[in-house]
Amino acid sequence: MRATLMYGAGDVRVEDVPDPTLQQPTDAIVRVVRACVCGSDLHPYHSLPASSEGRPMGHEFLGVVEEVGPAVTTLTKGDFVISPFAYQDNTCVFCREGFPTSCIHGGFYGAGGVGGGQAEAVRVPQADGTLVVPGIALEDTDDAMLASLLTLSDVYLTGYHAAHMGRVGAGTTVTVIGDGAVGLSAVLAAKQLGAERIILMGRHAPRTDLGVTFGATDVVAERGDEGVAKVLELTGGEGSHVVLEAVGHMPAYVQAYGVVRPGGVISRVGVPQYEDAPVGFGSLFGKNVTLTGGPAPVRAYLEDAVGQVLSGAITPGLVFDRTIALDDIADGYKAMDAREALKVMVAP
Amino acid sequence: MRATLMYGAGDVRVEDVPDPTLQQPTDAIVRVVRACVCGSDLHPYHSLPASSEGRPMGHEFLGVVEEVGPAVTTLTKGDFVISPFAYQDNTCVFCREGFPTSCIHGGFYGAGGVGGGQAEAVRVPQADGTLVVPGIALEDTDDAMLASLLTLSDVYLTGYHAAHMGRVGAGTTVTVIGDGAVGLSAVLAAKQLGAERIILMGRHAPRTDLGVTFGATDVVAERGDEGVAKVLELTGGEGSHVVLEAVGHMPAYVQAYGVVRPGGVISRVGVPQYEDAPVGFGSLFGKNVTLTGGPAPVRAYLEDAVGQVLSGAITPGLVFDRTIALDDIADGYKAMDAREALKVMVAP
Repeated sequence: MRATLMYGAGDVRVEDVPDPTLQQPTDAIVRVVRACVCGSDLHPYHSLPASSEGRPMGHEFLGVVEEVGPAVTTLTKGDFVISPFAYQDNTCVFCREGFPTSCIHGGFYGAGGVGGGQAEAVRVPQADGTLVVPGIALEDTDDAMLASLLTLSDVYLTGYHAAHMGRVGAGTTVTVIGDGAVGLSAVLAAKQLGAERIILMGRHAPRTDLGVTFGATDVVAERGDEGVAKVLELTGGEGSHVVLEAVGHMPAYVQAYGVVRPGGVISRVGVPQYEDAPVGFGSLFGKNVTLTGGPAPVRAYLEDAVGQVLSGAITPGLVFDRTIALDDIADGYKAMDAREALKVMVAP
Repeated sequence: MRATLMYGAGDVRVEDVPDPTLQQPTDAIVRVVRACVCGSDLHPYHSLPASSEGRPMGHEFLGVVEEVGPAVTTLTKGDFVISPFAYQDNTCVFCREGFPTSCIHGGFYGAGGVGGGQAEAVRVPQADGTLVVPGIALEDTDDAMLASLLTLSDVYLTGYHAAHMGRVGAGTTVTVIGDGAVGLSAVLAAKQLGAERIILMGRHAPRTDLGVTFGATDVVAERGDEGVAKVLELTGGEGSHVVLEAVGHMPAYVQAYGVVRPGGVISRVGVPQYEDAPVGFGSLFGKNVTLTGGPAPVRAYLEDAVGQVLSGAITPGLVFDRTIALDDIADGYKAMDAREALKVMVAP
């Protein structure tokens, strides 16, 4: 089959690789119907050291079950399924506590002998715990529905995780840092959770326009100290109850503790490209700021979100602004890296 | 009157200073009945640069109202009152949201022209918002009751804040780092909030014994990697739902993210003696750990806690193991610094 491999920064190739096969009785093989390129794929795209061994890429996909292992009980060949970006048994103590990305038997695509989602097919470990049957047949979907369901694999529910962990609720003032697909998803999720005011910090008008469609009440194009001053001005000097940080770079973190109000919450879902950061009296502690977030436990949120997509309550698939063939995926990486595309969908 | 001034590290003196006088119509003058030395007073005791101008010390006290400004409406001369360690109007937006230590019109004792509590009398700004009348007359109290009420000025409610922000509840496994008076208070508060298991990390037996009296179910004397391994062993390898960090030094922070479980909370109330700390994928983010805490908004918790002390439900005053006269307070600092005393009460 055809699959995407990254051989180093900027070096994305689609190659022939062996078809995936069942390796554990709990595995399933899924033929990919839609996949996409994640903002987090751009981190290795910038920094992966060159290697003769390609890294399998992609962790967001939906598709059709081709084959199941003998221990799989909830899935059968032909089922239309959505995969979260991580696999999990969905029964261990951490899964039960709502954090399946820390599943004792879980893991991530593209590592440890498991392939990536930017391919024609994928071996899915822990298939019973991982795959979700959305309750609609593939033939009853259209492109827009597929796009929205695909976002439940990662991007929308990562934005949702930020808002959920930030305890966004009725009457909350929320600031979202980042106008990428995760930031815009966070806007949509904050709106769903009842936020009263949603300030979107971003400076790419086509993206912030979609943010307004999703529920942003204010857009702040300024960054750094100017951006902080602007948000404080918009909030009467008080700052934001919740800040959803969807970037992952240090300047976004500094902006976050600049705009959060005393007693407020910074919720991060942009994978931090730093290890140490200010957390002392002058940043978080002095004003009782809570710092939360992490890899989204998508599986824990997936069923509810499927219902919202099927009912039309949310259309997170609007974050996709380009669809390409699998063999053209290198162009998709390039377009996202150049910010010519917000998020690229792959139809293999 | 007599008041405590610190002139540099290790240099604590009790001197004659002018009696405090009303300066704002919202002020009250309180004659101090009991005060104490805080663990946080030891930070300047270790590091304050020598100066010819002494810093007024002390922020925990209870006493009797001597005089009130013309705008004070809820207090009269003779009222027995408890003061939180910070003053606040208790009406501003941040006070209403539960974070009076961030009060727009608030501040701290011993700074900005306001004296300290380790003195015969104190000028209390924003007296209506700050002082709490506990509903018992001074003459109806005894030494033990005064000790417990005094802890509501800071130390017990700082421990309570840690547990509250950490969302300790029924069924929670809690690890408390630090066997100082705040750590032991955090044990007591965690017990009040229904924690199922309370692991106290500390190695001073007389203190950890009091911790057991307060509700600790396990004591771990090991520190660093050994201490982390021990807590993981005690929790079946899973880690603690909540970690209450009552020290403020980096090794305690490192221990905290070592023992917290995926999706868990680290709640800090030890004033951080660092600004930067690990918060990236390898420490907090990867396992969805929440970091919270800050200066305790004591005022927000004070009335409820007074009720618990008066009913005998809690006796946090057990943290005091020495009482001295104001003129001997330098000995009190010395004894706490040498860990010969857990917490020193001052009876002026």
